Amino acid sequence: MMVLVTYDVNTVSVTGQKRLRHVAKLCENYGQRVQNSVFECLVDPNQWVQLKNGLVKLIDEEKDSLRFYLLGANWKRRVEHIGTRPGYDPEGSLIV
Amino acid sequence: MMVLVTYDVNTVSVTGQKRLRHVAKLCENYGQRVQNSVFECLVDPNQWVQLKNGLVKLIDEEKDSLRFYLLGANWKRRVEHIGTRPGYDPEGSLIV
Repeated sequence: MMVLVTYDVNTVSVTGQKRLRHVAKLCENYGQRVQNSVFECLVDPNQWVQLKNGLVKLIDEEKDSLRFYLLGANWKRRVEHIGTRPGYDPEGSLIV
Repeated sequence: MMVLVTYDVNTVSVTGQKRLRHVAKLCENYGQRVQNSVFECLVDPNQWVQLKNGLVKLIDEEKDSLRFYLLGANWKRRVEHIGTRPGYDPEGSLIV
């Protein structure tokens, strides 16, 4: 299923900047960055649990915001893109 | 229906910073900011057309990225939040 991950990490402090890097790095392991703080992750149920638990451990819940949008299996019809970084197929190769 | 709007506006130039402000302002008219560049907009079909057309006019398609995720009517079960800015009900009052 497709899970959209969006985050705001508070980067005022050096530890915040570190959290931001770690959050992005973890998301990269599971999906495709489509905007600066937005990843589309095509995951199976086990991967979804791992991704979610991993992110929850990384963020500071008092300072950062993490949102997940479960787009399901028929996610393609739910997504529209305009502008730079054109459409790609997470199930295939990245079109740059 | 619920439409999630995410955007990356290139703010290197003054005109880019202006676009960013205008994009955020327009989104505020239709929905609720949940993260810096993420809005959840509960719109009817007419509003959705207005919102989309308005945003397309504002951005620079060669520099900015705009994505829409159509979460449908049963959107609540698709959203999970962790961290700051707790859950709110776009159909009701904002819980701060």
